[in-house]
Amino acid sequence: MKIIAGGVCAAKGFLANGIHCGIRKNKEKKDLALIYSQSRANTASVYTTNKVKGAPLTVTKSNISDGYAQAVICNSGNANTCNANGIEIAEQMCTLLGKALKIDEKDVVVASTGVIGQPLDITPIENGIPALVNGLSSDASQSAAEGIMTTDTRLKEIAVSFVVDGKECRIGGIAKGSGMIHPNMATMLVFITTDCKISTRMLQKALSTDIQSTFNMVSVDGDTSTNDMVTVMANGQAGNKEIDSEGEDFDTFMKALNTVTVDLCRKIAGDGEGATKLLECEVCGAYDEQNAKTIAKSIICSSLVKSAMFGSDANWGRILCAIGYSGADVDVNKVFVSFKSQKGEISVCENGAGVEFSEEFAKEILLENEITIKVKLGDGNGQATAWGCDLTYDYVKINGDYRT
Amino acid sequence: MKIIAGGVCAAKGFLANGIHCGIRKNKEKKDLALIYSQSRANTASVYTTNKVKGAPLTVTKSNISDGYAQAVICNSGNANTCNANGIEIAEQMCTLLGKALKIDEKDVVVASTGVIGQPLDITPIENGIPALVNGLSSDASQSAAEGIMTTDTRLKEIAVSFVVDGKECRIGGIAKGSGMIHPNMATMLVFITTDCKISTRMLQKALSTDIQSTFNMVSVDGDTSTNDMVTVMANGQAGNKEIDSEGEDFDTFMKALNTVTVDLCRKIAGDGEGATKLLECEVCGAYDEQNAKTIAKSIICSSLVKSAMFGSDANWGRILCAIGYSGADVDVNKVFVSFKSQKGEISVCENGAGVEFSEEFAKEILLENEITIKVKLGDGNGQATAWGCDLTYDYVKINGDYRT
Repeated sequence: MKIIAGGVCAAKGFLANGIHCGIRKNKEKKDLALIYSQSRANTASVYTTNKVKGAPLTVTKSNISDGYAQAVICNSGNANTCNANGIEIAEQMCTLLGKALKIDEKDVVVASTGVIGQPLDITPIENGIPALVNGLSSDASQSAAEGIMTTDTRLKEIAVSFVVDGKECRIGGIAKGSGMIHPNMATMLVFITTDCKISTRMLQKALSTDIQSTFNMVSVDGDTSTNDMVTVMANGQAGNKEIDSEGEDFDTFMKALNTVTVDLCRKIAGDGEGATKLLECEVCGAYDEQNAKTIAKSIICSSLVKSAMFGSDANWGRILCAIGYSGADVDVNKVFVSFKSQKGEISVCENGAGVEFSEEFAKEILLENEITIKVKLGDGNGQATAWGCDLTYDYVKINGDYRT
Repeated sequence: MKIIAGGVCAAKGFLANGIHCGIRKNKEKKDLALIYSQSRANTASVYTTNKVKGAPLTVTKSNISDGYAQAVICNSGNANTCNANGIEIAEQMCTLLGKALKIDEKDVVVASTGVIGQPLDITPIENGIPALVNGLSSDASQSAAEGIMTTDTRLKEIAVSFVVDGKECRIGGIAKGSGMIHPNMATMLVFITTDCKISTRMLQKALSTDIQSTFNMVSVDGDTSTNDMVTVMANGQAGNKEIDSEGEDFDTFMKALNTVTVDLCRKIAGDGEGATKLLECEVCGAYDEQNAKTIAKSIICSSLVKSAMFGSDANWGRILCAIGYSGADVDVNKVFVSFKSQKGEISVCENGAGVEFSEEFAKEILLENEITIKVKLGDGNGQATAWGCDLTYDYVKINGDYRT
């Protein structure tokens, strides 16, 4: 398996585009994205567990209930959520795109992201679709990735190639997500494409399994979005024998998918609103995997831990505190904590109590922009990793006046 | 019932004091507090549910297991938590104070607050106890309240008088709490005194019931402290017939206790680390009380709602979002939201969708420093109130470098 260029266009038969159509005021910012497969693709999707759901999710769920899709349309600047006419607008987006692409309107995945509770005007989208479709290219994954960004400061894109049944397959994805990030079952907006031939049932299984240890282990601010969605389209153009059961080929596919999703998780966490640092929390020795996940996520979600990391302050007491209130089954007298970055690693807590350490070296480690918090427990063999970011002045600034 | 002066010294037979003994570097800041009852008092207490517990809590729990206490000693500047010799130090504090006051060392409630995981030196406490005891006065509740403050910017004190069995009774309390505030079963440090005669069993019942709708409904940052504790001492000096069962007198006592605890909750939330605003979230029409509580607390804990309130931005979509991911049983199509302050009230969402409203008037309402977020649901008769504060640059600043 190797990392390759091309994002969602890396896999055979996928084209993309992104344009500014006028939903956002700033004309420099793209606000409409399209991903198109030249043939119908087996499609799997997972959605937010928030009871307040964006209208596009409801429409998408219905559209792909037969297991197929051929295109994804996604706008930024408006979430089309909590609007009286939300469903109608989302359906119109599918109808208009279906006509322009000459595909069934039911083969469209529709998504929206941005402010909640403001009616979404169909006009700029309707006017933009011809240019969006005409500009489709196998070289425009980046334009699509730009089209779905909101407060994201960095484009999030990845692709890998792998071999199944002697055929080279490719899988790639784009993501948006910076604030309102605390996935539960599904997360943010992530669109993944592959040319690997895999049945819808196995594709859904791969996705639903993978997100438990990837997107569901990311948190920027503890707020689970109304519009979270991850969709994978597999058009089978790599020509391999279809993966339709568990086994070696499915494992290979899972590994490739996981490489893509972990990369996007790290990119999302590291680009959390206002963030200056990516935090990775690795827990091992937990009673079981579930307890390891609970602890890793509790640490990564703690405002106090996040603020300390912003200040490069080795305040490990807050990590113990977050372990203690996590609800996990844990012996707090067997906790070891260390901080690690490319500058090195330093142990700050052993058997639940502080140890002498060099504050200078700790500071040097924590001044880096990718920090790993390592927690070793004495309860069993459970392990998990969670991703988050520091809490900064800029998070507050960005969210103090988001709508204007 | 009326509000009176005197704090923890308002009730008959209670004296207090607070001094700087040298735990904190800043000599202007008091760091050791004492509350003393001239007779043994029936005592009830609730503690944090964090599995990492401060050593003083363990010692206090053992000391008051017989239902009695006569004094409270509390230091700030160091939490005496996650230290190898924590229990020993907490016991020494009780022994030294017991000797100085000539009371049983087992009648001492001991508490500590401040940084976690740094050994607490007994020397300044030992040297300070004589002055602490000599300065005891019926006029020094404020000194004691100052002695327990950490990042608090305002002193938190209240007292009320009420009548039971024809006798005037008094109840008063002091509190500290500004960060690491997300109580679960107990919270922060709160010391309450009353001269009302009430059995330990009924006192514990009153306290355990009351905190469910008061301290457990406060959140500053989602982090449940390791050292949370609320203690009530009742020395019976008001001379009323002892309250030893449910009934009218118990109800009167509950109401007086609730007046004290709600006032302290509002003071704690309004003085949350870095806060510029007190947020009060009132939920009505929920399926039941538990669902109302879950929703109110989810809103008050949302970093996105808190940041919007800091920016006086009527971004109600985030309130719907927090309702949706709260896990509560709720029909999201029957949600009404309005913002209220002393400038007036404005409706922003009806039946789960936005309504037209004046952004100027909304801004005017939200620029005040006490904001009520009112949520009306269509599911039943459950109601609840939660208290929190806005998320500001200063929260990040305070917690980015807390230990230095």
